[in-house]
Amino acid sequence: MINSQRLRSDLEELSRIGRLPTGGISRPAFGPAETQARRWFIGKLEEAGLEVNVDQAGNISGRLSGPGAAVLSGSHLDTIENGGAFDGALGVLAALECVRVITEKSLSCPSPVEVIAFSDEEEAFLGFLGSLALTGQLSAEELEAAKNSQGFKLSRAMAERGLELEVVLRAKRDPSTIKAFVELHIEQGPILEEQGASVGVVEGIKGNYRYGITLRGRRDHAGVPMKGRQDPLFAALGLIEKLRACSGTFDSEVLMTVGRFVVEPGLENVIPERVYFSIDFRDDNPRALRSLEERLSEEIERLRSGTSLEIQQRQLLKIEPLPLSPSIQGAIKQAAEQLGIDWLALRSGAGHDAQVLGRFVPTGMIFVPSRGGRSHCPEEYTEWHDIERATEVLLAVILRLAGAD
Amino acid sequence: MINSQRLRSDLEELSRIGRLPTGGISRPAFGPAETQARRWFIGKLEEAGLEVNVDQAGNISGRLSGPGAAVLSGSHLDTIENGGAFDGALGVLAALECVRVITEKSLSCPSPVEVIAFSDEEEAFLGFLGSLALTGQLSAEELEAAKNSQGFKLSRAMAERGLELEVVLRAKRDPSTIKAFVELHIEQGPILEEQGASVGVVEGIKGNYRYGITLRGRRDHAGVPMKGRQDPLFAALGLIEKLRACSGTFDSEVLMTVGRFVVEPGLENVIPERVYFSIDFRDDNPRALRSLEERLSEEIERLRSGTSLEIQQRQLLKIEPLPLSPSIQGAIKQAAEQLGIDWLALRSGAGHDAQVLGRFVPTGMIFVPSRGGRSHCPEEYTEWHDIERATEVLLAVILRLAGAD
Repeated sequence: MINSQRLRSDLEELSRIGRLPTGGISRPAFGPAETQARRWFIGKLEEAGLEVNVDQAGNISGRLSGPGAAVLSGSHLDTIENGGAFDGALGVLAALECVRVITEKSLSCPSPVEVIAFSDEEEAFLGFLGSLALTGQLSAEELEAAKNSQGFKLSRAMAERGLELEVVLRAKRDPSTIKAFVELHIEQGPILEEQGASVGVVEGIKGNYRYGITLRGRRDHAGVPMKGRQDPLFAALGLIEKLRACSGTFDSEVLMTVGRFVVEPGLENVIPERVYFSIDFRDDNPRALRSLEERLSEEIERLRSGTSLEIQQRQLLKIEPLPLSPSIQGAIKQAAEQLGIDWLALRSGAGHDAQVLGRFVPTGMIFVPSRGGRSHCPEEYTEWHDIERATEVLLAVILRLAGAD
Repeated sequence: MINSQRLRSDLEELSRIGRLPTGGISRPAFGPAETQARRWFIGKLEEAGLEVNVDQAGNISGRLSGPGAAVLSGSHLDTIENGGAFDGALGVLAALECVRVITEKSLSCPSPVEVIAFSDEEEAFLGFLGSLALTGQLSAEELEAAKNSQGFKLSRAMAERGLELEVVLRAKRDPSTIKAFVELHIEQGPILEEQGASVGVVEGIKGNYRYGITLRGRRDHAGVPMKGRQDPLFAALGLIEKLRACSGTFDSEVLMTVGRFVVEPGLENVIPERVYFSIDFRDDNPRALRSLEERLSEEIERLRSGTSLEIQQRQLLKIEPLPLSPSIQGAIKQAAEQLGIDWLALRSGAGHDAQVLGRFVPTGMIFVPSRGGRSHCPEEYTEWHDIERATEVLLAVILRLAGAD
């Protein structure tokens, strides 16, 4: 039923906003490219004849009216630096396409339906800013502290748009006004492609504990004896190695990523003075995440008592695993089967706005395959026949949740 | 005999050139602060009534005339970024003080004596540039390739001074014009301080093998399964861990330093795409260094065959261990004993111009204690009574080598 050509042309138009010479896309939240993308998207919602609303956190929605609580569907328009064209954007535009089809074909759809684009999902300033604000999970302190990787504060970025920071808290919405939320998203992993399924029924989203560790030792010449050195780099390597061994001891291997690793002063013949690294754990099992957290603290204590290193440990994220709505999972499977589309149940290793909404309202996710499992990079790609099939499933699920049957 | 007050005031004057607000000193070779230091030093040599010469590699010498081959003593005036006041500078100024005393007191000194400041010892562009050029150990290719950490080429830095790169090769000097070289230098380690000795008799300088390793993997989202990741960071950590284990298996533990470690793109939720690190080995035993080199190549081969990572290995330094002249060691010990000064025989973990000269002419080194073993940092410090004693020893050794007895 959906107009695949129209969806594709939308995605291509949007992907030209923030496109770098490398082919990657940079639309970090509150930057000029994201602002342009937002304006473009509002135009598309208006063209589709939807009631447009931009809330105090910058979430943009286009509503198809109706009585009672609304079915929400969408994702986000922002990207990481040098990211891809599909992450976030596809979920927003697929939802828009579904609502356009409902209007054009005057399909029976008793509940209101809202297409939504959440603001700052990708942590330009504060990951999941829009969905956290909408569900009332933000504090004034967190907002005040939020800054981007260049140390530029969120409050300043908002002031430049003529916005006050505190208004963000007013984006909070009564959960009873939301009947359900469904997010279509790229898998960001290789499973669907490997298994040849066009649709992933997401059973749950992995929890995500993340830490920033700073070790400060003593800068010294590379010619001093090993004994007596206070080398923060070797200590950091040992710490990471121990956690990596531990992360493999659970029923399933915990995902572990060290994405940032900064060494100062960074001279070949000088023992480093300071090392900062991030460590990111993801798993379905909250006990595994808590074990790793304990292990991290124990190892840091051991280093503190056995060396003269100064060590700081900061929790950057603590998101518990979230099972998604079984009834929405059922609706996705049923829709796929009725349409004759291959589906596969799987779990998400990446975080999503669905994870934030899912704590308050019945929430589901539909994944589409990512070529080579790639995402957060210019190479991000999903075959169009898979997008078409998954969007048909999304339409069927929205209609079902909106009481069309 | 030496004028300790004058030496101290020289060192204090010199340490104001390139002083940072942090207290550290930045006088990288060919930079404005080093140029100022060179001018200041030439003035000091002229004041002392010495024949000043600046050779084609920028080595500055002040000569006390006499027949036959010369006794050279000195070190370097350049520093690393944010380094200390003693490394290099002390050796140059102590030698100057000795020659001033010889002149003033009209001490018998048959051979010519030269105070020398070698250029670019600290690797601003090419470590040991001056001493390598003087001993004819440089090639036009090495000179052409030399650039600083900002990628600025040596050829351009020299052109800005009105110099052509090739003239550097003409600094080569006939070894038969040099009778001996003695360098006074801070220890850059804690041994003399711990043992309470004012003078270190350097028996040899450790060899130094250094490599730059680049691992290129696949940038991916931190939510993808562990299996199938191409994570260059964990591979780098494993490689370093294996070499570290190996470096402890020899008679004495090989010094091992990873000073540079760069991760790209460096985002908390992205598996790194590229890791570059330096690895520096130092030891007295050439077999230990060669074993580590073989082990490094083996482990890289293992990674190449077991993963899809692209790995590049580049040798950055290959300096063999160098025993110093036994007769000059004997002269230093004898001088210390005659002056009633505590001495200790030890080996140098740091590289020095003495290591470059020592392949061609009889060479010795006198170490003074470094407080806390610190060097290459603003905290670099040597007690003045130690400096005084060691300079007296240096004077006695120069006189002895110059045939004063």
